[in-house]
Amino acid sequence: MMDEIKIQKTLQPKEKPQLSELGFGNYFTDHMFVMDYKEGRGWHSPRIIPYGPLELDPSVMVVHYGQATFEGLKAYKTKDHHVLLFRPHANMERMNISNERLCIPTLDVEFAVSAIRKLVEMEQDWIPEGENTSLYIRPFVFATDPHLGVRPSHTYSFMVILSPVGSYYPEGIDPVKIYVEDNYVRAVKGGLGYTKTPGNYAASIKAQEVAKERGYTQVLWLDGIEKKYIEEVGTMNVFFKVGGEVITPALEGSILAGITRDTTIKLLKHWGIPVQERRISIDEIYEAHAQGKLEEAFGTGTAAVISPIGELNYQGKIISINDGKTGEIATRIYDTITGIQTGVLEDPFNWTLKIK
Amino acid sequence: MMDEIKIQKTLQPKEKPQLSELGFGNYFTDHMFVMDYKEGRGWHSPRIIPYGPLELDPSVMVVHYGQATFEGLKAYKTKDHHVLLFRPHANMERMNISNERLCIPTLDVEFAVSAIRKLVEMEQDWIPEGENTSLYIRPFVFATDPHLGVRPSHTYSFMVILSPVGSYYPEGIDPVKIYVEDNYVRAVKGGLGYTKTPGNYAASIKAQEVAKERGYTQVLWLDGIEKKYIEEVGTMNVFFKVGGEVITPALEGSILAGITRDTTIKLLKHWGIPVQERRISIDEIYEAHAQGKLEEAFGTGTAAVISPIGELNYQGKIISINDGKTGEIATRIYDTITGIQTGVLEDPFNWTLKIK
Repeated sequence: MMDEIKIQKTLQPKEKPQLSELGFGNYFTDHMFVMDYKEGRGWHSPRIIPYGPLELDPSVMVVHYGQATFEGLKAYKTKDHHVLLFRPHANMERMNISNERLCIPTLDVEFAVSAIRKLVEMEQDWIPEGENTSLYIRPFVFATDPHLGVRPSHTYSFMVILSPVGSYYPEGIDPVKIYVEDNYVRAVKGGLGYTKTPGNYAASIKAQEVAKERGYTQVLWLDGIEKKYIEEVGTMNVFFKVGGEVITPALEGSILAGITRDTTIKLLKHWGIPVQERRISIDEIYEAHAQGKLEEAFGTGTAAVISPIGELNYQGKIISINDGKTGEIATRIYDTITGIQTGVLEDPFNWTLKIK
Repeated sequence: MMDEIKIQKTLQPKEKPQLSELGFGNYFTDHMFVMDYKEGRGWHSPRIIPYGPLELDPSVMVVHYGQATFEGLKAYKTKDHHVLLFRPHANMERMNISNERLCIPTLDVEFAVSAIRKLVEMEQDWIPEGENTSLYIRPFVFATDPHLGVRPSHTYSFMVILSPVGSYYPEGIDPVKIYVEDNYVRAVKGGLGYTKTPGNYAASIKAQEVAKERGYTQVLWLDGIEKKYIEEVGTMNVFFKVGGEVITPALEGSILAGITRDTTIKLLKHWGIPVQERRISIDEIYEAHAQGKLEEAFGTGTAAVISPIGELNYQGKIISINDGKTGEIATRIYDTITGIQTGVLEDPFNWTLKIK
């Protein structure tokens, strides 16, 4: 049985940022959730305390050996001032899948969701109400043993912090230019690719920087084995519409099982639009383009929801998709997901959790 | 020009642990070296201060995106009370190679070595003098921006902490049993495998734990593409002696360019023992064993120096190497390296840096 969440309120509430200043991940609210794990004792001492610095030993294992996982989800305020979370259980279930791979103790999903709920409820005045804004929720777990030497830590912290955000990409829902990466590899089957762990993101930074220097917003990752099959776009899953059918790479262990990916697939099926999860080679996409059948391409992820792809560059061969404009399916999915998330549209799938 | 190193001495020196209690990476000395980086300003404010906790924002990028690198080297006390470092420039040059891959600003190698030197000199009373003991030196760099969203950090800290250590493996130089891993993958060409970054170690923990449950000390990693070629053993490089010749996997981007690996190769060449860096399949090793030609196998790394392999288990096929005893070459290399490191043997290669 988990202890009750102890609450210590801040005595110095911060000033809230202007909507125009938000950006992504730059501001944090007044409080945070913390819970500790110790071998033999389990998860304990859940508490909401003022947002403030962690005191970590310089040998703290997370900094040296990267044993950590995280999640990302959002809270939205509806027009009638309710507060909605979007599929929070899916995030915490995925965190447990990540934790198992990283040898980190799993969490009680219901308790973790209730902790998120409690924290967001306390911080509801921080949920911004402008277009494309939300309160980004970052649950994360990390190894806290002060020890050098590679082994699983015996102690961990689980935390939740909140950040009022605008659009992840400054471009917003406008189509972006993507560089097809055939040198650097993000992950490979048998590795950590399907988990949300810091190392996957560390592995992605260099290619992203090289792409930016070349004038591209992000990279399209190919598989690490044959450098042939499409994996992800930046930190998002990727979808293509080819000849009336929507296709997306199957989950084979090297890519993240995105919750927006799953939401997108369920919506497409609900609408009767054919959708397939399977291996997709970059050659197939270029061939479809040559035949005039490549109708749309877009990324899906919690941070940006939908990010249309207007151009691909693979080994210097540049193709434009849907004349560089946002496609019909991408628009419909974006409008539907954000509509459900913000309570503007019906929620036939019970995806939202009303917490106030 | 780098600033001078400011020194603030502790007012509360710690009690030093008993030799028998040391273990590996459990105790830390009284002081640490810290230096900060800020975009536009560069590395600045080098200082030696009392060892103590870091104050990090909960959104500190290293915890979320793993942008960090580290090194490991050792200081030894000679019988006549001098203090030796072993190839410190090689470590700091390798850190710069890691940093470039992780988009972390590089360091001035000479300055970094001088910082290590200064710190170790101050902490020389912490260098243990028992058999197989040393002062382990851990330089590390990590991203310090308080920010969510994947990009290179704009700020970093470089630190050096020191830990008096005994043997890395409780088994010491005794041969260990190794499980050949053909499911989990550590790294693949195009990824981070050749760098010393937390994510590589996070990726290795699960296989290590599974091997331990099966009664094995460590895993032998195979390549992530064909699951056929030998890469590393645990967190060490690996060598085999087959028919009088020593072979070790070539550096092709997925394994670490170990400094003990390089030292071992140079010693073998110096002794006129044939040594080759090339691709080695696990099948080749098993075939050599079947033909009675597999004479030795051992891992090399800073922490344990040499770790002989007494048994391999590949897909249930178990082979014993050199009757489970430490081989002649492994012993000779171990004795020579530790002899040079501790000043007992001549140092014809100028590997040691006398700092006192």
